Amino acid sequence: MTEIRTVEANNHIGEFVQLKGWLHNVRRLGGVNFIFLRDGWGTVQAVTEDEADLAPIADLALGTVIRLGGLVVANAQAPDGLELQQPRIEVVTPVTEAPPLPLNKRRLNAALPTLLDHAVVANRHPARRAVFRLSSGVMAGFRATLTAMNFTEVQTPKIVASATESGANVFKLDYFGRPAYLAQSPQFYKQIMVGVFERVFEVGPVFRAEPHDTVRHINEYVSLDVEFGFIENHFTVMRLLREVVAGIFAHLTDNYQADLRLLEANLPIILPEIPHIHFADAQELILRRHGVDVRGEPDLSPQDERWLGEWALETHGSDFLFVTGYPMVKRPFYTHPDPARPEYSNSFDLLFRGTELVTGGQRLHRYQDYLAALDRAGHSHEPFEAYLEAFRYGMPPHGGFAIGLERLLMQLLGLPNLRLATLFPRDLQRVAP
Amino acid sequence: MTEIRTVEANNHIGEFVQLKGWLHNVRRLGGVNFIFLRDGWGTVQAVTEDEADLAPIADLALGTVIRLGGLVVANAQAPDGLELQQPRIEVVTPVTEAPPLPLNKRRLNAALPTLLDHAVVANRHPARRAVFRLSSGVMAGFRATLTAMNFTEVQTPKIVASATESGANVFKLDYFGRPAYLAQSPQFYKQIMVGVFERVFEVGPVFRAEPHDTVRHINEYVSLDVEFGFIENHFTVMRLLREVVAGIFAHLTDNYQADLRLLEANLPIILPEIPHIHFADAQELILRRHGVDVRGEPDLSPQDERWLGEWALETHGSDFLFVTGYPMVKRPFYTHPDPARPEYSNSFDLLFRGTELVTGGQRLHRYQDYLAALDRAGHSHEPFEAYLEAFRYGMPPHGGFAIGLERLLMQLLGLPNLRLATLFPRDLQRVAP
Repeated sequence: MTEIRTVEANNHIGEFVQLKGWLHNVRRLGGVNFIFLRDGWGTVQAVTEDEADLAPIADLALGTVIRLGGLVVANAQAPDGLELQQPRIEVVTPVTEAPPLPLNKRRLNAALPTLLDHAVVANRHPARRAVFRLSSGVMAGFRATLTAMNFTEVQTPKIVASATESGANVFKLDYFGRPAYLAQSPQFYKQIMVGVFERVFEVGPVFRAEPHDTVRHINEYVSLDVEFGFIENHFTVMRLLREVVAGIFAHLTDNYQADLRLLEANLPIILPEIPHIHFADAQELILRRHGVDVRGEPDLSPQDERWLGEWALETHGSDFLFVTGYPMVKRPFYTHPDPARPEYSNSFDLLFRGTELVTGGQRLHRYQDYLAALDRAGHSHEPFEAYLEAFRYGMPPHGGFAIGLERLLMQLLGLPNLRLATLFPRDLQRVAP
Repeated sequence: MTEIRTVEANNHIGEFVQLKGWLHNVRRLGGVNFIFLRDGWGTVQAVTEDEADLAPIADLALGTVIRLGGLVVANAQAPDGLELQQPRIEVVTPVTEAPPLPLNKRRLNAALPTLLDHAVVANRHPARRAVFRLSSGVMAGFRATLTAMNFTEVQTPKIVASATESGANVFKLDYFGRPAYLAQSPQFYKQIMVGVFERVFEVGPVFRAEPHDTVRHINEYVSLDVEFGFIENHFTVMRLLREVVAGIFAHLTDNYQADLRLLEANLPIILPEIPHIHFADAQELILRRHGVDVRGEPDLSPQDERWLGEWALETHGSDFLFVTGYPMVKRPFYTHPDPARPEYSNSFDLLFRGTELVTGGQRLHRYQDYLAALDRAGHSHEPFEAYLEAFRYGMPPHGGFAIGLERLLMQLLGLPNLRLATLFPRDLQRVAP
C-alpha cells in the first residue's frame, strides 16, 4: 500500500493508501463518523458508518498518533474534494489527555498568554503552521533572489567583544570569566565581508535587550541582512531592496498558495519603482495633511509612519514607501551623510503598510571618515580596531539593509502582535518555552 | 562599456569591459607590467608595456580599490587563459598602507594567531575565500536536499531558560536581571517541531562553553540540524543522513569546481550504503587490529576514531563509517535505548575520514518514557515542562542528527585547525575580531 502525505491524496484517487499523523478531530453526524488526520502538511477526512472502525481510538484523546489506511474517493462535498473510505486505524502513540488548546477548530481561539505558554502544542494548529511555513518561504525566497544576483551567504559570530555598534541595548554574557555580548546585528561583520565577497547576505538571529513591552518588539528575532559594494549611494541599495522584496513575494506566490489562502493573506502591491519621500518632505506632508507639526523631530513616530503609509497607498497605490534622508543625529556613526545636506543621511527606512520593515543606507567607506566619525561620536578607537582594518586596507562605497523576518510576516498577515510571527518568542517576561 | 565580474571575462573575449575590485598585485617583468585585480569572485590580469598606465596607482598600496577597463584578449599563457590589454585604471578608494598579511601570494603564509588576529584582511585571500564559499555551498546543498524531501526550515530561539539539555557547558546570560543561557543545540526545539511539521531542519549557531583548547573545538559553530518523525529506528535516520551528505557533496561538485580545485579538495567516496559497525564490535576490532583493549570504555577516543576510519577505507573503500549503539551511559537522557540490549542506544556517530562529523539517533517519544528517563538521570521535571508537553500530547517515533559545518569543511579540505573553517572563530582566548 502506498504511503502518502495528506497533500498528495488528490494524486491517488481510487487507490488504497496509507497515511500517518495525528488524530485531529472526530465528528459523529447522524450515524456517520468523520475522522480527521493531520500530518506535517495538511489534514484529510476519513468517513465510515461502521462504529467498529473507531474502536482503536475509542478511549484515546485527540492528538493520538495514528496510521490511517483507506481508499481515496473523490467527493465534492469533502474538504479538498476527497475523503478516505473503509478507514483502518492503527495507534502509534496513544494520547490520553485532551490538548491544553483546541487544535480542531478552524481558528485557534485562545488568549495570547495561553497561546504563548502552550506554544509547543499551539504551533500544531493548521493556521499557526501556515504562518511558520510562510516564514520558511520568506527565508527561501530571500536566499534564492540574492543567490541569483551573485551574493554569497555568510554566517558571522553572535558572541561579540564589544557593545558599541549603536544605541540599542545588548545582552551581556559571561565568556570564560570575561564580559562579552550578544550581537545586536551582523552590521560590522557584513560590512567587513563586503571586503571579502563584495556581495553578502546573512539569515540569522539578532538580540536586542531593549526593555520595550509593545506589540511590535521582541528581544530575539531573525534578521535578513544584505550588504554590497560599489554602490553610487543609498538609491542603489533601495533598487536592490525592491528586487529582493519582489523576489520574496514571488516565491511565496509561487509556492505557498494554500497557506496564503488559509491565512487570507493580502499580497502587497510592489510597484516597479517603490515611491520615496525625503524625511524633511515627509514631515511637511504630515503637517499639511494632518495639521501636526513634527518638523524638527529627529525621527518618525509610529503614528507618522501610519500616516505616510496611508498617503503612499492613496497617492501612489503602493503598499511600500521609502523614507530617505533621516537626520544624521539619529543614525549610527557608520552612516554616510548626504553630501549636499550633511545634517541628513544617505539612509532610508522602508515602510510596509505604515510600519517600518527595513532599515538601510549607504555606509562610510574611507578609513579617515571612520576615525572622524568615531571621534565625533565620542567613541575611543580601540574597541573598533578589527572593524577599522576593513577600511584601512581598502573598502569600496557600500551599503545594505536588514529586513525583520517577523515584521514582514506581521504586516503581510495583519497579525495583531509580533509575538505571533515567531515560534517561541522572547520578551521581557518570556524565555520559555 | 559592459561592467563585468572577473569570472565572466571569458564570455567577453574581444570586448572592452569594465571591472572593479581591489588592486591584488603588480609585477614588472622586463619592461612588461602585470596588474592583477581581485573582485568578490576571482582575479584577472591586465598587461601593459606603458608605464604611464600605472600612474594612477603609483604611490598607492595593494588593496587600493579601483576600476579597471580594458580589452579582453585570449592568451593561453595567462591565468585562466585571458588577460586585459590597454588597461585604464581609476582609483575608487586609495590605500596607503601595505596589508598586514601578504594577500598576493598563492598561499597565505602566516602563523595561525596572526591570521586570526587579522582575519578581517586575511579572509580576503583567494584561498581563504574559497573555504568560505564552500561553507556557503554546504549550507545551500543541505537546504536544497532537505527541501526536496519535504522538510521545513525552522528558526528556534538561541536564548533559553535552562541549561539542562546534556552534559555540555553552557554560556550564562543576564536576561533582564534573570539568568538565561545560550542554546548549546536546537535539540529540544527541533524535537518539538516534529510535532508541528514532522520533518524539520535548521541552520544556525550553537554555543558550547567547553573549556577545550584543541585543534578541533571552537565555542560557537554552525550546526546543520535535522529531525523527523515516523522512523523505525536509528537506521532510518542513517539512511536519510546518507542522502543528505550525498546531496551536499553533489551540490559542491556541481557548483564549486573552481574552489574545490584551488583548495585541492579530495572529494569523498560516498557508497550507496555507508558501512556501519556496532560500538561493541568496533572496540573488539580495535583490540584485534591494534592490540589495544578499549572494551569497557563508554566512548571512543580520537585515536579510536582514526583507527576505525582507516579500517573503513581499507575494508570498505569508504571515507565514511557509522558507529552505532553507543552505550546509554554516555548519551543524553532523551536517547532511545536498543530494545534488544538496553545498555546500548539506538544512536550513532558518523565518522568522516576518522573524525566524528555527525551525531544522531532515535529519541524517546512516549511521555512516560521521558518521565522515567528524567527520574533516572536525577533531573526534576519542572525545567522540562514545555518540552514534555510535546510528548504528553502526542509524538511519533522520531530521530535526527546534527552535522558540524566547520568539521565537514575541516575534513573535506584537510585543514589543520577547525578555526580555519570559520570566518571569525570564538575560542578560549578569542572573541574578536
